Amino acid sequence: MKFSLEAKDPLSKARAGTITTAHGEIETPIFMPVGTAGTVKAVHQRELEQDINAQIILGNTYHLYLRPGLDILERAGGLHKFIGWDRPILTDSGGYQVYSLSKVRKIKEEGVTFRSHIDGSKHLFTPEYAMDIQRTIGADIIMAFDECTPYPCDYNYAAASIKMTHRWLKRCCTRFDNTQPKYGFDQTLFPIVQGSVYKDLREKSAEFIANMNREGNAIGGLSVGEPAEEMYAMTEVVCNILPYEKPRYLMGVGTPINLLENIALGIDMFDCVMPTRNARNGMLFTRNGLINIRNKKWEDDFSPLDADSDLHVDLVTSKAYLRHLIHSKEMLGAQIATLHNLHFYLWLVKEARKRIIAGDFYEWKNKMVKVLGNKL
Amino acid sequence: MKFSLEAKDPLSKARAGTITTAHGEIETPIFMPVGTAGTVKAVHQRELEQDINAQIILGNTYHLYLRPGLDILERAGGLHKFIGWDRPILTDSGGYQVYSLSKVRKIKEEGVTFRSHIDGSKHLFTPEYAMDIQRTIGADIIMAFDECTPYPCDYNYAAASIKMTHRWLKRCCTRFDNTQPKYGFDQTLFPIVQGSVYKDLREKSAEFIANMNREGNAIGGLSVGEPAEEMYAMTEVVCNILPYEKPRYLMGVGTPINLLENIALGIDMFDCVMPTRNARNGMLFTRNGLINIRNKKWEDDFSPLDADSDLHVDLVTSKAYLRHLIHSKEMLGAQIATLHNLHFYLWLVKEARKRIIAGDFYEWKNKMVKVLGNKL
Repeated sequence: MKFSLEAKDPLSKARAGTITTAHGEIETPIFMPVGTAGTVKAVHQRELEQDINAQIILGNTYHLYLRPGLDILERAGGLHKFIGWDRPILTDSGGYQVYSLSKVRKIKEEGVTFRSHIDGSKHLFTPEYAMDIQRTIGADIIMAFDECTPYPCDYNYAAASIKMTHRWLKRCCTRFDNTQPKYGFDQTLFPIVQGSVYKDLREKSAEFIANMNREGNAIGGLSVGEPAEEMYAMTEVVCNILPYEKPRYLMGVGTPINLLENIALGIDMFDCVMPTRNARNGMLFTRNGLINIRNKKWEDDFSPLDADSDLHVDLVTSKAYLRHLIHSKEMLGAQIATLHNLHFYLWLVKEARKRIIAGDFYEWKNKMVKVLGNKL
Repeated sequence: MKFSLEAKDPLSKARAGTITTAHGEIETPIFMPVGTAGTVKAVHQRELEQDINAQIILGNTYHLYLRPGLDILERAGGLHKFIGWDRPILTDSGGYQVYSLSKVRKIKEEGVTFRSHIDGSKHLFTPEYAMDIQRTIGADIIMAFDECTPYPCDYNYAAASIKMTHRWLKRCCTRFDNTQPKYGFDQTLFPIVQGSVYKDLREKSAEFIANMNREGNAIGGLSVGEPAEEMYAMTEVVCNILPYEKPRYLMGVGTPINLLENIALGIDMFDCVMPTRNARNGMLFTRNGLINIRNKKWEDDFSPLDADSDLHVDLVTSKAYLRHLIHSKEMLGAQIATLHNLHFYLWLVKEARKRIIAGDFYEWKNKMVKVLGNKL
């Protein structure tokens, strides 16, 4: 993996760069649509490529490990081939879903035992196994196995947790560095800064992570319920420590405003289920604010979803029709709303990149954050 | 509406023709994808046009009347504009869904009272109102309001039912002929032959319907549980009576084999939820037989759904991936399987048309019906 920085905003820490992977380039800042179980819900791969121009998607190790399972993924030649996607993929380590989806789980030094949310079967994820699994899935960028602490989190628990996360990281790196990719292309491992909302823990963790000297770094454990100001404060603390010349990935974030504020703090990569999940409930993100398409006010609004968009469904779908589809629980409603939201998120980061290169990001960002939260 | 016949198979009653409507031409024999509530489930309109080349779709009056409702449809300028589809549309009369979906319903001479399956609200459909509703929906071809008898059906009930259906038909025609289309293009009304599986009732009904002298005719009340042989026998009886030079529409039919056998008996138009509904459960129709993609045998079959197809998803989706998506209840599974099945149904009728024009339909049909039911 290579990362080159092309521009830096004069009034903020925002930067524009390019990540080069075996499956192509990613222009940063970037948003990665979440493709949980080998599919970005309700979206064809062709639409991701041609309509939305997604440059990288994310796969969830926990889901893929349980279904279709490692044996099938390996025989398919990895996730890219299995799902028919030849652009970059990033996988998380599986930890987050173990903590959030599995009702029975136990965290020990060795790793985490949990029961499948599908069939109740018992499994053990260790740092080493999380590397082996991600070698088999075959993403371009894979993530360290960490503990993602909830919010709120007791200081002592968070302090002990980062120590374990750091010990786990060493085990991840050892395993990763002693194994080979399975499908003939390079993978890279990003470590993850934790530390809840405690500045000193975040600093300590960021220093540890920076010292591991990997090709990119991530920040986890944010956007888990804390106020946005605490998130931004932590991002700022961590970005001051993580190396400038390597990509920074803020995991699981967030709203359009969250994206812009964190870009201003020096973040390059984002992922979040918000645009896809909220789409299925009829919430649309637009450059003028939020639309709850279920509201009666859209019932007879026959204007297109977005007349200024270059996305096909934005031009041919009226608000009234999408409202009808979402109300009727028709799949096409989820399909159209998901395309719309992902297209908007990718427009937002592309526009941010343009503004960074043009040198007027900060002003534009401040203008945008004033309107993006409006309810239309 | 115009109908021209271009070819007739020498060894069967199959024919190839062209229906011309205000929204374009339909080459027959044709299959009409079912777009229940203003959407062919899981398929974008662009895909219907560009990937599947659907020439006409069907809308359900019952569903559209309840949601989004006539007021919205009229203000949108009709169903074509509301859903963004400018090719032909056919609507049923609402009767079939009233009988099958509404738990509380009462059939009287005046019409049918029923309660909405959505909110329990009470409604009355009369023959006149079914015409008014379909004027407002604005389909190119609209259907008479009839009673669709179940199977099995007592002879005396069926005999009385066709008499009422015929009285209702007169009322439909009177209302239709005394009203104008609402959106500046012509609509046409097809009457429906009923009579359950009784030859004499079917003959009587077909003669009555033929005498009404509309631009096209339909056969209803088949594919409701009767053996296929009874269906074919009734189609044959009715096609011998319905005028040769007008299109014949067999409602709600059926399997690929049903389509071919009924084409051989002189049917021109079909609709059925089978390709779309079965797709969502993982059943695929192919030219070699049926695939239940949920079966374990497809788990590690990484070959494309159909390497000989000209449908994009058939080429880029492996059987193993589709199996995974259907098992995981991912929307993309329904999306891909639906595209596949509709594409296959439209390939089948297109191929039938080609063979009719080439003069070797009968032989091809007999070969196909031997394999289409195979379980792969």
